[in-house]
Parts: sequence; C-alpha cells; structure tokens
Amino acid sequence: MEKKKEFKVAVAGYGHVGKDTVKTIIENNAIMEKRTGIKLTIKTIFSRNIDKVKDDKFLDKIEIKTKDLNDILNDDDIDIVIEVLGGMDTAKELLIKTKKPVVTANKALLANCFGELIKNRKTDIAFEASVAGAIPIIKAMKESLVSDRMENVYGILNGTCNYILTNMTKNNLDFKDVLKDAQDKGYAEADPTFDIDGIDTAHKLCILSSIAFCNVISFDKIFIRGIRNIILDDIVFASEMGLTIKLIAEAALDENNNAYIYVIPTLLNDDNMLSKVDYAFNAITVVGDRSGDTVFYGSGAGGRPTSSAIVSDAVTLARNSLITDELRIPILGFVEENKELQVKDFREKNENFYVRFKSNNNNLLAFNEAFYDINIDKSMERNGNFMFVLKDVNINSIIESIEKVEKIDDIFIAKIK
Amino acid sequence: MEKKKEFKVAVAGYGHVGKDTVKTIIENNAIMEKRTGIKLTIKTIFSRNIDKVKDDKFLDKIEIKTKDLNDILNDDDIDIVIEVLGGMDTAKELLIKTKKPVVTANKALLANCFGELIKNRKTDIAFEASVAGAIPIIKAMKESLVSDRMENVYGILNGTCNYILTNMTKNNLDFKDVLKDAQDKGYAEADPTFDIDGIDTAHKLCILSSIAFCNVISFDKIFIRGIRNIILDDIVFASEMGLTIKLIAEAALDENNNAYIYVIPTLLNDDNMLSKVDYAFNAITVVGDRSGDTVFYGSGAGGRPTSSAIVSDAVTLARNSLITDELRIPILGFVEENKELQVKDFREKNENFYVRFKSNNNNLLAFNEAFYDINIDKSMERNGNFMFVLKDVNINSIIESIEKVEKIDDIFIAKIK
Repeated sequence: MEKKKEFKVAVAGYGHVGKDTVKTIIENNAIMEKRTGIKLTIKTIFSRNIDKVKDDKFLDKIEIKTKDLNDILNDDDIDIVIEVLGGMDTAKELLIKTKKPVVTANKALLANCFGELIKNRKTDIAFEASVAGAIPIIKAMKESLVSDRMENVYGILNGTCNYILTNMTKNNLDFKDVLKDAQDKGYAEADPTFDIDGIDTAHKLCILSSIAFCNVISFDKIFIRGIRNIILDDIVFASEMGLTIKLIAEAALDENNNAYIYVIPTLLNDDNMLSKVDYAFNAITVVGDRSGDTVFYGSGAGGRPTSSAIVSDAVTLARNSLITDELRIPILGFVEENKELQVKDFREKNENFYVRFKSNNNNLLAFNEAFYDINIDKSMERNGNFMFVLKDVNINSIIESIEKVEKIDDIFIAKIK
Repeated sequence: MEKKKEFKVAVAGYGHVGKDTVKTIIENNAIMEKRTGIKLTIKTIFSRNIDKVKDDKFLDKIEIKTKDLNDILNDDDIDIVIEVLGGMDTAKELLIKTKKPVVTANKALLANCFGELIKNRKTDIAFEASVAGAIPIIKAMKESLVSDRMENVYGILNGTCNYILTNMTKNNLDFKDVLKDAQDKGYAEADPTFDIDGIDTAHKLCILSSIAFCNVISFDKIFIRGIRNIILDDIVFASEMGLTIKLIAEAALDENNNAYIYVIPTLLNDDNMLSKVDYAFNAITVVGDRSGDTVFYGSGAGGRPTSSAIVSDAVTLARNSLITDELRIPILGFVEENKELQVKDFREKNENFYVRFKSNNNNLLAFNEAFYDINIDKSMERNGNFMFVLKDVNINSIIESIEKVEKIDDIFIAKIK
C-alpha cells in the first residue's frame, strides 16, 4: 500500500457550505495535520458560477477553479471529492461517475437514491454532514454502537421547524406570525414547504433508519406529517399537560423486526432531554439494547458547523481507503443487510395521540360517541376546536371514527411519547 | 497485509463490567458481524478468582479460563486484549507488557500513567469506556472534531455526585441523608471519597483534556474541589437565582494556548443543556471553533452500557491495526503534541463565583468590607451562613480577602457559568 500523508481534495460547490469548507480546511490545516497526520490540500474547486467567485481570497492558492465537472472526474491526482452542490442532477452525476471516495452533505440525494448510489460502488461515500450538521451522529451509529441492537432512534432534525415551535411555545405566538418572522430573519425559506411539511426531516430520518436497522429504507415508506396546521391552542394544551411539542423523526424496531418510520409532531415529557432542545438546535436520541439512551445535541445547520462534519469525513475516508475491503467501515454501517426487516405502516401502529379538529356541524358529544371503542383520556372544546387525548390507538382508527360523524380535512394529530 | 475477519480476544477481569462485556460479545455477535464484517471471538478469560466463576454459562464456550496473566501475555494467537480488571498493579503490568492492542476502561490508570503507557508503545490503546460509559465522546473528539480548535470541554462525569446533587435539588434533602441513601442503593461506595471529592471526575477530565488540547495532561495539574461540603442552602440559593448546581469538570483553552483544567461545583443557567442532566446520567459539552457547542448525553456507568463502548473499541482497534502506522488513529488523538500548551493554576483565573462560609466571630459587614476590591453582586446571611456572589475574581483573591478577617477552614466555592 502506498504510504502517503497528503490527500488532494476537490470541492464541488461553492455556496454557503462550500465556502466554509474551504475556509476550515485552509485555516485549520495545521491543527488537523497535528491531530491526524493527514494533510488535506484543496486542488480543485468546481462551481457553476466560478467566474463570480474567482477573486475570493481563499481561492488564491487553489490550482484549479472550474465550471467543468470533468476537471474533477478525469483528474486521477484527486484523492477525495467533496460534494456540496446541493440539488439533485449535477450532484448525482458526480457521485455516480467519480471513481474517488466522496463526502456529501446532500440528504435529499441520499434519501432518494441510496440504493442506486451504493449498488456496485467501488469507493466510499461519507455523509456525516447530511444529518444534523456538526453532530457526529453518523459516525456514532456506524462505529460506536456496533454491538447494540438499536431499538429506537428519534430526533429533532430540522432547525426551521424547531425554531418555529420554540418561538410559538416561549412567546405565545401563532404559527403564521412566527413563520413570517423566521423568513424575515433567514431561518426559513421563502417557500418553506420542504421544512414545515417534514420532507427535510424525513430525508434525514431515511438515512438514520437505514443505518440503525441495517437496510436501505425506501423514502416512500416513511410516514410524514409536518407542522403546517399546528395552532397556538395545541401548544397551550400540551403545556397544560406538562408536555412540549416538537417535530420528531422516529424509527422504532420491535422484537419481530417490524420497523415503523415516521415524522410527526410529538408531545414530549419534561424529563425527555429532547423537550429542552430549543430554536435552531438539533438533537438525536439513540436507544440501544446495551447503551440505553444516548443523546447527541448540537448545531444542525450553518456553514461552519457543517464544514466540521465534512472535513472529519474526509479524514475518515482517507483512513478507510487504507483498509482491506472487507473490513472497511461500510457506507451505511452494515456489510450484510437485515433481510428480515419489514417496514410497516405507522398509521396502523398503536400509540397515544393528541387530536384536534374543528367541526361546524357537530358537538363534542358526537365525537366522544364516535370514539366509543377508543380509550379517551381527555376531551374538550376550546375556541371552537375539539381536542382529544386518545390512548393505545392508531391513526387509521382515529380518522375512521371521526369520519363516521363528519368528513373533516384539517385534523391535527400529534403522537404522545 | 493478512486478510482476516475473525479477531481473537482476551478479556482480563471478570467483575461487573467484564461479565457484561463477555455477554455482549456472545449475545450480539451476529449483529456486530453483519454490521462490521468483523467477528470477535473470546479465546481467553483471566480472573484472579477464576475458580469461582468457572461454571458461569457464558464461559462454556471459552477455550481458556485462567488466573495466570502469562496465558494472555504469551499467546500470539490473541489479537486484542480487553482490560477490565480495575485497580492499578495487574492492569498496568498487562498494558505495559502486552504486545497486542488493548481496550481499557481504567481511567485511574490512564490519568496517572498516560505518559508512561504511550511512550515507545508499538500497539494501540483504546479507552472509550473510561469516560462516561456508553457515550462515544472519545471517538467524537479523536475523529469527528479533528478540524476544530476545541476551546472548551466541560461535563458531568460522575454519576454518584450527580445522583446526590439531583436528589438534594429535587427533594430538598441534606447532603448526608442523600449520600447514605445512595450508599444503601448501591449508587455510592462505602468509602465515597473517590467520587464525592472529585477524584474520579478529575481522572476522566485528565483524559478528555489531553485529547482536546493535544498534549498529555499531568493529573497533578488539575484543580479539584468536590461536593463534600455542599449544604442544602447552597442549592436553594442557586435555585433562587434560577441556577442549578452540578459538579462540573472543565478544560478551557484561551487564545494564547493557556489551559485551565479544573473540577468544581458549578452553577449552571437554565438554558445550559447540562443543567437538565439528572441522577446517574453523564453529559459532556465540547465547544469547537467550527462546530460550536455539541453535547453528548447518556449512561455514564453500569456494566451493559460500558460493554457497548468496550466492544466498539475492539472493532476500532481491529480496523486501526490494518492502517499504515502514520495514518492510524493516534492513541490520544494527536500525532504531534501542542508544545505551546501551558497549564495554568485555576486559582488565578478570573470567573464569577458563589462563596459560602460560616463565621462565629464576625458579621456580614466585615466580609463585605474585606471584599472591597471585589465586585460583589449579592451578599446575604442565612442560617448563620454568609453567602456571596462575586464577579470577575479568582479563588486566591477570595481566600485572601476572607483571611484578612478570619481564618476559615470550611469555605464552599462554586463557579458560576
């Protein structure tokens, strides 16, 4: 095996995260080399808008600045490719075509194309930055919890949603006002669909659950409900019960290898560490049969934190490339998939739920009667809203019961954990 | 390089942690092999009391059960040694003499002998289990935060102290009563000195700070104050200020490479995640210049959680043994030490402090006057105790000022963070 210390890197993408990645590699190169013995040198920067950024001072010492992807694909001198393009097309082309190990932060690409990307792949993909920014949850799950049967993984994975929910809770504000404020401050996109409808959270959950349960999870198997239809009353009601609402991504495995994988607003108890995670922070709890509950908390987004994850991944890839094939750290943390795994429909899983909806035609009694077969823990009417706490029931039964009385489109359902 | 899948393991020590390590390796071997491609086989068990445990059902399939350390030291067939003996003498002999990579959970040994253990060493030592049980903080610091300048690492590292403080806080109990209860329940040793005087916490801090600051930290450079002289009034007073008292181990690095490394009761703000860490749980916050604050929380002790860390270390050692020397993960997370690092005396570091003591001879006014040069934020007398909140001052000045009035032995000092 060739002995080397220096690894040449190509960075594809020079937006927010790309810039901070270049900055971290250049500014902290000495620290990194003293720690690891590995020197990362950026040889090439690719950007579709390279003409606009050519004069950036961090790019001075970088040999190749290009808008031609082939300058990365055809350069055998490059050891590691860092993909921070975002989007699907170019990123996917790069990941499929390159013969080099790749670091990527592209959760949408991974969640949608994991099977395709790893099939017949000869080189590594590392993706610590794709979930929860700087929090080293991927390495922890792939390398630190190898002897655990991971029974449950759940977390707050989207800073925008958590910022909105925290603000509603702490300042008694309505969803729409907080969303607008978040958009003004740059915490939420002009089109916030991806975030508030839970899609981004589900992309990350797809990655985490694939590692936890040792199988490539299809994104379309994930049940997804976001926070778009939450109202202040939900938060007030939860808080009266001593509970806090968070958008939780969860993957649960039962003893028969049935997995339930879902994103849903969730009422958390005060003694749950995740109930304390506020504003744009992310956190993940992994429940292992040996380790018990381990919680990882930190900055889930932002260029600087994300660059920390990207650069440590580059070091891991450099080391991993020196290990004989069979014993390398596997891309998704398993060498043999769990064939017995069955992903079930969350709508059929019994849990405790909080349900709220509005009816113009019927009264509380009508719905109480409709829930006759369901264990009703609490029921009340407030500001024209009917609110229920239902125990040991599944979403399909809830909807079915409500529809026996009336077809209602806007039903807010939150799991109680 | 020889291609292998199976790594033969010797487990030295068959107490609490040793038993659970054997159990985890045997019970979860299939999971682990599917994840990693690596099969761990326990060949040898060493225990000074092996005659007593020979009939244990988990030992049935293990080839060698011995009370002779040479059966490990002289067996070339063994690939990895797991040291869970505890204590110093035999453990040290094993770590020094073995030519194989070693996993150890022995924080006291590491903190006191790190320099000696790694000097001229040809094989690896892994020690995830030595700090905070199942929490993968060592791997995170050594591998995930390689591009960060780690500016501060602080944590709750001793479950016994945290159990006592949490119980005092939640149930308004006196230190002595809670300690006795903890001893009755097995959470505290009959001789609790190691825990409540902060020694165990300092051992773990020694390990964490060595990694964070890239140098072997001498244990005797660590300032240590435990919780032995805390009283309920301290907790009540803190809580009236909206603060929670925890025994915090902290290592702080300033921009000039001056490090302050200390264990001291600390008053934490409610928005600090560590203020929410209750009972026997551990948590560590790492502050990096890129990653920001990342918090790791979980089970800090117990056989099962500790075994999770031990077994993942064995896998890491197996992989690491396949990498060319220069690029292996270094034992303490650095290949070149930070020569500029200066460990300074915490007693000279200015911080905000809470101070409480009793005087039979003098009144509050006398001490207020003695603190003339110090910024007094609050001062009061309660149940015969004088309590002060002092700003931007160091411990030496505080003691000196008090002694201008009266020599007092029992002064409780807590940092305010």
